[in-house]
Amino acid sequence: MTTQKIAVLGPGSWGTALSQVLNDNGHEIRLWGHMQAQIDEINNNHTNSHYFKDIVLDEKIEATTDLKEALDGVDAVLFVVPTKVTRLVAKQVAETLDHKVVVMHASKGLEPETHERLSTILEEEIPADLRSEIVVVSGPSHAEETIVRDLTLITAASKDEETAKYVQGLFSNHYFRLYTNKDIIGVETAGALKNIIAVGAGALHGLGYGDNAKAAIIARGLAEITRLGVKMGANPLTYSGLSGVGDLIVTGTSIHSRNWRAGDALGRGEKLEDIEANMGMVIEGISTTKVAYELAQELNVYMPITQAIYSVIYEGKDIKEAILSTMTGQLKTEDEF
Amino acid sequence: MTTQKIAVLGPGSWGTALSQVLNDNGHEIRLWGHMQAQIDEINNNHTNSHYFKDIVLDEKIEATTDLKEALDGVDAVLFVVPTKVTRLVAKQVAETLDHKVVVMHASKGLEPETHERLSTILEEEIPADLRSEIVVVSGPSHAEETIVRDLTLITAASKDEETAKYVQGLFSNHYFRLYTNKDIIGVETAGALKNIIAVGAGALHGLGYGDNAKAAIIARGLAEITRLGVKMGANPLTYSGLSGVGDLIVTGTSIHSRNWRAGDALGRGEKLEDIEANMGMVIEGISTTKVAYELAQELNVYMPITQAIYSVIYEGKDIKEAILSTMTGQLKTEDEF
Repeated sequence: MTTQKIAVLGPGSWGTALSQVLNDNGHEIRLWGHMQAQIDEINNNHTNSHYFKDIVLDEKIEATTDLKEALDGVDAVLFVVPTKVTRLVAKQVAETLDHKVVVMHASKGLEPETHERLSTILEEEIPADLRSEIVVVSGPSHAEETIVRDLTLITAASKDEETAKYVQGLFSNHYFRLYTNKDIIGVETAGALKNIIAVGAGALHGLGYGDNAKAAIIARGLAEITRLGVKMGANPLTYSGLSGVGDLIVTGTSIHSRNWRAGDALGRGEKLEDIEANMGMVIEGISTTKVAYELAQELNVYMPITQAIYSVIYEGKDIKEAILSTMTGQLKTEDEF
Repeated sequence: MTTQKIAVLGPGSWGTALSQVLNDNGHEIRLWGHMQAQIDEINNNHTNSHYFKDIVLDEKIEATTDLKEALDGVDAVLFVVPTKVTRLVAKQVAETLDHKVVVMHASKGLEPETHERLSTILEEEIPADLRSEIVVVSGPSHAEETIVRDLTLITAASKDEETAKYVQGLFSNHYFRLYTNKDIIGVETAGALKNIIAVGAGALHGLGYGDNAKAAIIARGLAEITRLGVKMGANPLTYSGLSGVGDLIVTGTSIHSRNWRAGDALGRGEKLEDIEANMGMVIEGISTTKVAYELAQELNVYMPITQAIYSVIYEGKDIKEAILSTMTGQLKTEDEF
């Protein structure tokens, strides 16, 4: 593949790690963000120390706060901004773009007000003549491992196979592998919903429970998020794949995951406000819990773990009682559970 | 439930932990094994120190090397012996039993020579007038956690729902929960085959790879063992449940798992003979790999991870090359991978 010019919108941990992957593959990266001090640090020191203390980025990775400069003449645009600002940034991109680009995103969430998937927001806000079919890049991927070039396998999902293959080609190298997938609904909903279960698994850890209990909540959590995803149009098999169970494992069993850490802190009795303040990063699972709770009611899907976590975060229920109630109720068959 | 008399065959770590659960529930336990020193230790010191250094068992748990004594007047028999001796012990039970009992097993493997599931062996060897339909007890369960009464949720699978419910009632209490399931083929094959993937995940760890790579091999491993299970008659949904993905997570991400530890040691370059000698416990995943490899050929199922691990264990291939070849081949769609 010849050198492509790519705008990466969002210099968080994952946006920075993906910029390095693309730069390693010989592409020309413009990393866009709105915080001048962070952008200056990337350009002057080649570090992004809020996320990666010991990593020096290639000096070819250029950052800017100017969206027009970031988008000028690019072949592709990668959104890696928090869910809640995706629509706003998409509007700005639509106003600024003067040519057609491949549009990708690598964020994991659902819009709070509309319950929409992020690719739907991008479709709505960026006119069809300025963009390809959207490609979602999602899967088991701690940024902390990708930034040190540890082996990472994820999916590139799109309705259009050729565009998915183009994105597969952009990113893939000896340590970073993309597998194409046509089920964009499944890949996006799995990536978003798994964060709820990670909060639950973290909470069990914080409450002092062991691996048996955590594996059980992950298995039962997978079942309930699959039920919701299928009602939203997903292929259930996607939930058994890299962006489903793969991502759930990496998020639900590891201290690297901010959603798991948030649950762990809740389990240890910390207040949500303090957890969010201490983290200094967006905890997508918190707002996704509310969206999933509302969707479960709307679509009539049984989601006991999501309900329990919702009742803790949004109704002040006792976390031990709420989580245990999902695991120690009446004896049942596995189907009903 | 009134007090039941139960023979537990196999005083390994899981047999001992399950004996304690049943004893906690007020049942009368006879724990049978063939090593006199171990049986004496359980009866005299109330310890089983080869498996649990710091655990003192209830003195009501009685052990014996005499199968006739163990089976005398029991309501139920639980097999927890290694896969390779299940048929032999079943023959002895059939010769010794003089009344009808509920037959359960909690082992995870497939018979090397016949490729049969353990419940099939029990059906074949114990005449129908001496037993119930077989019940399989399986799920995410480190014995080390159950023995300290940490929360554990697993499945009780049987063709006969009433017998499964009886077993659910025998075991369930506030820290140990059983969920019934009709898919005995799915529960048994998932429990056996997941050990192969645990060896693979351990091997990646031993080779120095991180959580991203391990989550990917677990997700892809789940896909391939599901493909084989379905060909053997399993419901694919069982593989997303407690005894599928739940057990795979607990086995594939934890140093408590002997299969994971065996893979880890292989990844660090140790010889299989030394690993088996050092472990002092049966590593079911090693022989299950051979069975699954043969079944994959027989049933024409694509199982790249199983093939890779087989080639390392049985053909002396280089482990890094073999495992990585499954993850860094030609770029593909997720379906083909």
